[in-house]
Amino acid sequence: MISDIMLQKYAIHRLIQTALEEDVGAGDITTTAALTGEEIGNARAVAKSDTVVAGIDVFRETFLFLDGGLKFTKRFHDGQTVKKGDIVAEISGNLASIMVAERVALNFFQRMCGVATMTRRFVDAIEGSKAKILHTRKTVPGLRILDTYAVRTGGGSSHRFGLSDGALVKDNHIAAAGSIARAVAEVRKRIPLTVKIEVEVTNIREVQEALAAGADVIMFDNMSLSDMTTATALVAGRVPLEASGNVSLDNVKKVSETGVDFISVGALTHSVKAADISLRVEGR
Amino acid sequence: MISDIMLQKYAIHRLIQTALEEDVGAGDITTTAALTGEEIGNARAVAKSDTVVAGIDVFRETFLFLDGGLKFTKRFHDGQTVKKGDIVAEISGNLASIMVAERVALNFFQRMCGVATMTRRFVDAIEGSKAKILHTRKTVPGLRILDTYAVRTGGGSSHRFGLSDGALVKDNHIAAAGSIARAVAEVRKRIPLTVKIEVEVTNIREVQEALAAGADVIMFDNMSLSDMTTATALVAGRVPLEASGNVSLDNVKKVSETGVDFISVGALTHSVKAADISLRVEGR
Amino acid sequence: MISDIMLQKYAIHRLIQTALEEDVGAGDITTTAALTGEEIGNARAVAKSDTVVAGIDVFRETFLFLDGGLKFTKRFHDGQTVKKGDIVAEISGNLASIMVAERVALNFFQRMCGVATMTRRFVDAIEGSKAKILHTRKTVPGLRILDTYAVRTGGGSSHRFGLSDGALVKDNHIAAAGSIARAVAEVRKRIPLTVKIEVEVTNIREVQEALAAGADVIMFDNMSLSDMTTATALVAGRVPLEASGNVSLDNVKKVSETGVDFISVGALTHSVKAADISLRVEGR
Amino acid sequence: MISDIMLQKYAIHRLIQTALEEDVGAGDITTTAALTGEEIGNARAVAKSDTVVAGIDVFRETFLFLDGGLKFTKRFHDGQTVKKGDIVAEISGNLASIMVAERVALNFFQRMCGVATMTRRFVDAIEGSKAKILHTRKTVPGLRILDTYAVRTGGGSSHRFGLSDGALVKDNHIAAAGSIARAVAEVRKRIPLTVKIEVEVTNIREVQEALAAGADVIMFDNMSLSDMTTATALVAGRVPLEASGNVSLDNVKKVSETGVDFISVGALTHSVKAADISLRVEGR
Amino acid sequence: MISDIMLQKYAIHRLIQTALEEDVGAGDITTTAALTGEEIGNARAVAKSDTVVAGIDVFRETFLFLDGGLKFTKRFHDGQTVKKGDIVAEISGNLASIMVAERVALNFFQRMCGVATMTRRFVDAIEGSKAKILHTRKTVPGLRILDTYAVRTGGGSSHRFGLSDGALVKDNHIAAAGSIARAVAEVRKRIPLTVKIEVEVTNIREVQEALAAGADVIMFDNMSLSDMTTATALVAGRVPLEASGNVSLDNVKKVSETGVDFISVGALTHSVKAADISLRVEGR
Amino acid sequence: MISDIMLQKYAIHRLIQTALEEDVGAGDITTTAALTGEEIGNARAVAKSDTVVAGIDVFRETFLFLDGGLKFTKRFHDGQTVKKGDIVAEISGNLASIMVAERVALNFFQRMCGVATMTRRFVDAIEGSKAKILHTRKTVPGLRILDTYAVRTGGGSSHRFGLSDGALVKDNHIAAAGSIARAVAEVRKRIPLTVKIEVEVTNIREVQEALAAGADVIMFDNMSLSDMTTATALVAGRVPLEASGNVSLDNVKKVSETGVDFISVGALTHSVKAADISLRVEGR
Repeated sequence: MISDIMLQKYAIHRLIQTALEEDVGAGDITTTAALTGEEIGNARAVAKSDTVVAGIDVFRETFLFLDGGLKFTKRFHDGQTVKKGDIVAEISGNLASIMVAERVALNFFQRMCGVATMTRRFVDAIEGSKAKILHTRKTVPGLRILDTYAVRTGGGSSHRFGLSDGALVKDNHIAAAGSIARAVAEVRKRIPLTVKIEVEVTNIREVQEALAAGADVIMFDNMSLSDMTTATALVAGRVPLEASGNVSLDNVKKVSETGVDFISVGALTHSVKAADISLRVEGR
Repeated sequence: MISDIMLQKYAIHRLIQTALEEDVGAGDITTTAALTGEEIGNARAVAKSDTVVAGIDVFRETFLFLDGGLKFTKRFHDGQTVKKGDIVAEISGNLASIMVAERVALNFFQRMCGVATMTRRFVDAIEGSKAKILHTRKTVPGLRILDTYAVRTGGGSSHRFGLSDGALVKDNHIAAAGSIARAVAEVRKRIPLTVKIEVEVTNIREVQEALAAGADVIMFDNMSLSDMTTATALVAGRVPLEASGNVSLDNVKKVSETGVDFISVGALTHSVKAADISLRVEGR
Repeated sequence: MISDIMLQKYAIHRLIQTALEEDVGAGDITTTAALTGEEIGNARAVAKSDTVVAGIDVFRETFLFLDGGLKFTKRFHDGQTVKKGDIVAEISGNLASIMVAERVALNFFQRMCGVATMTRRFVDAIEGSKAKILHTRKTVPGLRILDTYAVRTGGGSSHRFGLSDGALVKDNHIAAAGSIARAVAEVRKRIPLTVKIEVEVTNIREVQEALAAGADVIMFDNMSLSDMTTATALVAGRVPLEASGNVSLDNVKKVSETGVDFISVGALTHSVKAADISLRVEGR
Repeated sequence: MISDIMLQKYAIHRLIQTALEEDVGAGDITTTAALTGEEIGNARAVAKSDTVVAGIDVFRETFLFLDGGLKFTKRFHDGQTVKKGDIVAEISGNLASIMVAERVALNFFQRMCGVATMTRRFVDAIEGSKAKILHTRKTVPGLRILDTYAVRTGGGSSHRFGLSDGALVKDNHIAAAGSIARAVAEVRKRIPLTVKIEVEVTNIREVQEALAAGADVIMFDNMSLSDMTTATALVAGRVPLEASGNVSLDNVKKVSETGVDFISVGALTHSVKAADISLRVEGR
Repeated sequence: MISDIMLQKYAIHRLIQTALEEDVGAGDITTTAALTGEEIGNARAVAKSDTVVAGIDVFRETFLFLDGGLKFTKRFHDGQTVKKGDIVAEISGNLASIMVAERVALNFFQRMCGVATMTRRFVDAIEGSKAKILHTRKTVPGLRILDTYAVRTGGGSSHRFGLSDGALVKDNHIAAAGSIARAVAEVRKRIPLTVKIEVEVTNIREVQEALAAGADVIMFDNMSLSDMTTATALVAGRVPLEASGNVSLDNVKKVSETGVDFISVGALTHSVKAADISLRVEGR
Repeated sequence: MISDIMLQKYAIHRLIQTALEEDVGAGDITTTAALTGEEIGNARAVAKSDTVVAGIDVFRETFLFLDGGLKFTKRFHDGQTVKKGDIVAEISGNLASIMVAERVALNFFQRMCGVATMTRRFVDAIEGSKAKILHTRKTVPGLRILDTYAVRTGGGSSHRFGLSDGALVKDNHIAAAGSIARAVAEVRKRIPLTVKIEVEVTNIREVQEALAAGADVIMFDNMSLSDMTTATALVAGRVPLEASGNVSLDNVKKVSETGVDFISVGALTHSVKAADISLRVEGR
């Protein structure tokens, strides 16, 4: 797989610039006082627990953006799993530069690895099922490009990125339009050619209305397992189905057994546990 | 307490602009198709579990930044605890505006409430202790101003914001300078007048060196409970002490009993569980 | 229809800021010298030929962004046709403000009206057909949000906005993947849930391959009228069809008669004729 | 001639960044799915009709900005005319990078070549005349630096770039000041030392007033050919003269024969026909 | 005179945003701790020595940009002279807001008043002369719009703002072109219509060459008083003349007596003495 | 000493981009007309009076940011003193690039050298004293990072950079809190761990209150020499002391003799005299 975010290096650099300005502020007052600036250092990014690697290019770019003279060596690639104690990457060059960039680089990388690792757990939990794990729009403001990439790296799939690349007809749209049929018809008239219409439903009757209205995808919003099973049988493969709402590692297997095609999990990105990765820096 | 981030409304607006551009992209294709634009709506932000409120002004500003004609009513203030089912705030006005702003507003607010809620649990866990819970620099890139505000709102205190408002002498600084004494001396010569020097130590011997070197604050980096207890006795209140490293709800009480003054917890901001808050929107 | 770009006022203001900085530069040296700053003015935007109105809110916002004290009165709304001599809008208030904002406001508005007017001519040219006129990505860099809105205002429809909200499988994708079937399969595995796959074909054989591969939409790339007619019959409504390539007012009627569902016209936005609208300003 | 916009590479890069963010959005979902990222490609920019080349450096920078590893070879330079079928430039390197950058690069380049080509036609139409063809401020918001460069590349000359580098006294300035004489006097007192004062006139009497007032340049605003001839004789070379208003390829020759020194043509930039240039990309 | 920079409020706000972000950083830690946020304050900007007022609108906008609820009352206008002890303006409203904005507001205002005051001294020093005092491009990076406005407010005039609104032919241009005549001819061919050509000369022979070449303005670069007197007589009013180089309050009178029309003074903006203005803030 | 601002090259580049956009505007119309673009040049930055070098890296980066092909050779380093006539640096490469970047590069460099030179004079004036010279927040908006670096380069020390990296309790804070004791207590509760509290006092009684309140640093605000001497004796080294207010080269020696530890001088950055450095450019 292409590390697709690297085709947007210009966008990644902008995020890194913002993060460095935030963290470095008026300068690293400790490092610039304690070091002469001539020291050469060597740093190893070490996994302190098993984790899926995601965002190693963002990790690298942070160091290089601060100091183009640093040398970064990948030991693993995005999507691989590292074990506790593995060295994920090495950075060498000006010690001061490494120390100034360290925290920002780790803040990006640990979050991305954390998202990918949790996604992998969900994916593994439904192994054997045809269902795919999806991200939602519940990402950290400003970092959606990284959050969603990390979900894909962990084996998940993409839902719409934002409000403009997918039509999702919700209860308020339906209420405003008057009915599912009218809402879908109105949206069909106006959305871009290549975008599908997904309709959010909460019960069997609405599933039937959505089907009749010509929905391209149907989302079960917080429906019970038995209702989802019934609805899936009713739809019988005519359109893809998505389960949504309060999915956890505890219940995802059961959700997948309802026969849905997609399961979206907000927690993948709204409740991230950062991966435990640390940088061991040595001057030499 | 002043809602201090509101004295930086210009900074908050910049974050909101970035977040809206990210989420709305080329436009909300569902809402602009299903609604006429004339609908009036009413929305209630409802807590779906007990949570500490933090960032309600950011929540409000997101709606108002998108549409200055919306009306926002706070029902609770930052720092208060809401119970499951409580209505935290109400928004009324143009329905389309409410629906377009909803996700971004919640993404900010749920994270901030989540940070504050977890901080409160740490603070409560050491009740009776003199120790204060601190944030670290392990925040989400770009949102440190919000993350650290949320920690304070939850009852925590601030460590340095970034690399320029506190000197933290770590092992690599010490190695580069030659000794703790020389590192502290070099840093003392150059740092801004109003900034303290904290020295990171890993054992009793280093505690003594740091004290001798004139450190203003000493941080125990991943030291055992017994070593911290010994060290605290040794320091005997001459300088403030901070415990750092792998602090969790399980062990924070014990850490506080070592007698340290501050306990920093990276997980407060690097491993956030978003608060469960949803927006119930009704057209009328 | 909602003036959907007004739900992105924050984005429009950013475009206006850039345009004003570009045009006003270090200041309007004529106006600030010849006027006292106390003069009140009244301006009428007059159509100098028949045109479809598009972007009147952008026109208004430009004046108000420069000077919030100006008063802007719409006489027509987006989508309406004005006749030569009609007054489209009136602006009153500080004369200097009106004169400084004039050119930028017109540059936006004349282009948008020009796009809408040309779109309307294409739409009218195929009246009675089921086909819809589409924009392409051949827009002016930085103004796509305005260009595509203007197309919709003129009666056209939206193709994908950019590279992320629609999959369009072209010859190079096919060559890289090995076949249409494999390209579509690869893309299907990875694209966001709500996005369709359109396949670009150049002959009947490829149409069949695309259908077999499960394309959601098929684009005829520069195919002859007779080939398109044949292909349309072959597809028989199973998927939407788009005609693309060298469509002009001269041939669009014939293209629509092939039975395609969509006709994309790059010239709508890459070769715009600005609408002839002028501002008659009077001091008083 | 120096490719002067390349002395502002920092400004060009900013435009390219904006354009890529707009077009690529959350990523090129087709290319990143259909390609492995390892493919090498070769692309040829081919003229599909005769055109004047303008902006080839912007074309190149777009590819290199996205991926510094691409190799770009110019076959023609700005100002040269290419014939239908000519290869204008070649790009080789990572195929995915070429495909992602393609549309943005062409959107810039086709517009700039279109502007230069039309300018050349106006210049050719008045061959033998001393008059020069000028751009106006009727450019696309945000791209004036490119639009005006393209006019110069096509053989045209520059009018003022914006409101701060030339004083243009119009009817409203005159009305506010009370007379041409007073308006010019007021402006003379305040404008920068190196900037001229041009006065817009609509009849012979005003020409005389402008001359008497000490105008540095006089603009005939929508005056008849005969009035312009009379006025030109009257002025007798004392100041440069500019004809403005509704100049087209049909009448520009006649306008030049009135003896004016400059002819400004808004359509050069407000009503651009993009040059027909396509990229033939081949993987290898 | 129009406060012309207020026609560029959008540009001023951008400068203020940058300045506030720089100064306030992560928040005013003293004010947000010591105040409750409910205090109301009243502040008086007091002149501590005689000064020309310049930039009072920038001063006001800084307070209002931070907190739109503050009330600002001007007691003097730009261009007026205030005496030691005079109250220049009053601000009332939220005390915390006033205290946070204070330093940034004063940094802008004290510099601008300082520039205007020094300019006034130069203008006064040559009273009775026809010569005008000019600013140069030796301004503080990023604030040229303010620096040059302040010079005009103090009674000075504008030279070119930057490299694009005036042609200034210097020794290196002449050397590259081969002669003054050829340099002027080349520049004449390419510069915008409304821009003049100034030629920098260092001796009488070059004055003659510049005149012969058709220079619109001639600048005497570091020429002696006697040479300037000779040259002025020689030029005899045919083109405006500018004296440049090491002009101080000590010699400006003598320079003016050479008969030149303009005297440019780099020190007006490169060596500014901030005006002594302080804010007396009182809570109530 | 590390040239610490070079660890923030990303921040410096942003300042340079802003400055070039401001100065170059729509292009250097003289250079691009008079030169062919092929000329090679050589430039020497020459000191025209004795000065302390500061910001030579910013000087270099400005040239390289505009044209990465230029070659820059340092002859001196930051902190060194150059004599009148010394060549500080040489730049060679494309002549047009050198000429376009010249003014911006000098504007940065001359200011920074000017700040460092004045700082050095203050430092030299108190030689033998233990006191250190401090900058204040009275810097030019947007350039504080450069201004404060220049002060350090000249031998001065840093006060707080902005409002967030030091608590400075002033009269209004005290009034709002009710007393020095309460203000300090409130601030102590809330400020970041590594930040000190400085209290501003105006008389001996307040010195005693500040000491009693536990101030970390005490600032004498405009106190007389004798009061400062008395106060210094009273404090007897328990906390560092800062003298502030109307310090000049005339009185700084006397101020240092009061025994204070720090002397802050606003004029170092609010009233800068640019160093006299010029660029001698030669084409070859």
